[in-house]
Amino acid sequence: MAAIKLHGNPFSTATMRACASLHEKELHFEFVVIDMKNGEHKKEPFILLNPFGQVPAFEDGDLKLFESRAISHYVADAYGDKGTRLICNEPKKMAIVRMWLEIESQRYDQAASRLVWELKVKPMYGLPTDPAAVEESETKLGAILDFYEKTLSQSKYLAGECFTLADLHHLPTIHNLMSTQSKKLFESRTHVSAWVTDITARPAWSKVLAMQP
Amino acid sequence: MAAIKLHGNPFSTATMRACASLHEKELHFEFVVIDMKNGEHKKEPFILLNPFGQVPAFEDGDLKLFESRAISHYVADAYGDKGTRLICNEPKKMAIVRMWLEIESQRYDQAASRLVWELKVKPMYGLPTDPAAVEESETKLGAILDFYEKTLSQSKYLAGECFTLADLHHLPTIHNLMSTQSKKLFESRTHVSAWVTDITARPAWSKVLAMQP
Repeated sequence: MAAIKLHGNPFSTATMRACASLHEKELHFEFVVIDMKNGEHKKEPFILLNPFGQVPAFEDGDLKLFESRAISHYVADAYGDKGTRLICNEPKKMAIVRMWLEIESQRYDQAASRLVWELKVKPMYGLPTDPAAVEESETKLGAILDFYEKTLSQSKYLAGECFTLADLHHLPTIHNLMSTQSKKLFESRTHVSAWVTDITARPAWSKVLAMQP
Repeated sequence: MAAIKLHGNPFSTATMRACASLHEKELHFEFVVIDMKNGEHKKEPFILLNPFGQVPAFEDGDLKLFESRAISHYVADAYGDKGTRLICNEPKKMAIVRMWLEIESQRYDQAASRLVWELKVKPMYGLPTDPAAVEESETKLGAILDFYEKTLSQSKYLAGECFTLADLHHLPTIHNLMSTQSKKLFESRTHVSAWVTDITARPAWSKVLAMQP
């Protein structure tokens, strides 16, 4: 039995985020598929791991966690000496990483996840896309990506010259949006586009995608 | 000139969050008031500190930061040996703190901030409160607080027996909601109610409130 278990769905963006951190750290883990079509995430035993009934949930020995960004941060912190570094020890450098973690979760993700919902998830379930919601979210995301463009014209990654957790957290939504009309928001910005090409080509990310049947 | 500067508004919940961490750490800092009524947060020089035009922004020597939760985390990390501890070194304990930091920012705050907007900010500007939005947000917040109640029946604070950044991040919205109808959501849950009484009575929090003219 593996000490590390990730319970989730290979197509869920939050599950993909946690998975990416585990693969970057080259950790062996057991992936427990939660059948969301049958509502397994809303029932016991899953609900005992995450009372809010959302994937993923995570176990490392006696530690039980949920919230994908807390899982990836724990993995980066607890397995600091393995695989890619992902976080920094120096407080001022880590402050910049954390600022970008917040920009992703508080700003970028609000717009990006809404676009994933409208342009990827809804069509999959035969639901109509709301063009007004798409337009509003694309305008918001565009304004946010203007700041990314400025930052990425000055450094290779969001928080400096090294790939960190801040870059990694964007991967699942970027992956989903690159097969929609919203890819233009990334491709029309030179440095954002180069960053997307770079981070989506990481071997750890290919391993996350390979988990999708 | 103080090495640490916080630019913000004493009534903004995000500014109050960053302030609380500075007072918990017993740090000397210069507070630069941003006149939001005159739109100072949308213009230079403030916009050079936060391109998204929202308070607060923060400086510590050559470090410039925005995003209140990144500021408070930096303060907790960089000044670990001063004042209240706020974070943990042990990865598994810190993982639980981080899970609660995510629950606050991803779940609790969505509902709580909407209630602050509807029940505190809108009336201040003579705008009508939307009863449907209030009802929806109170239902959501209630369901979230049910999990808080369960947790706080087992430990004094969210992430264990010590007050941490995870508790602190809730203070500004709790303070605002305690003078609205939504206080019932906190008061009707025994352990949540005791936690609210405890954390709002902290001397550092009184110092944050004393900054409001």
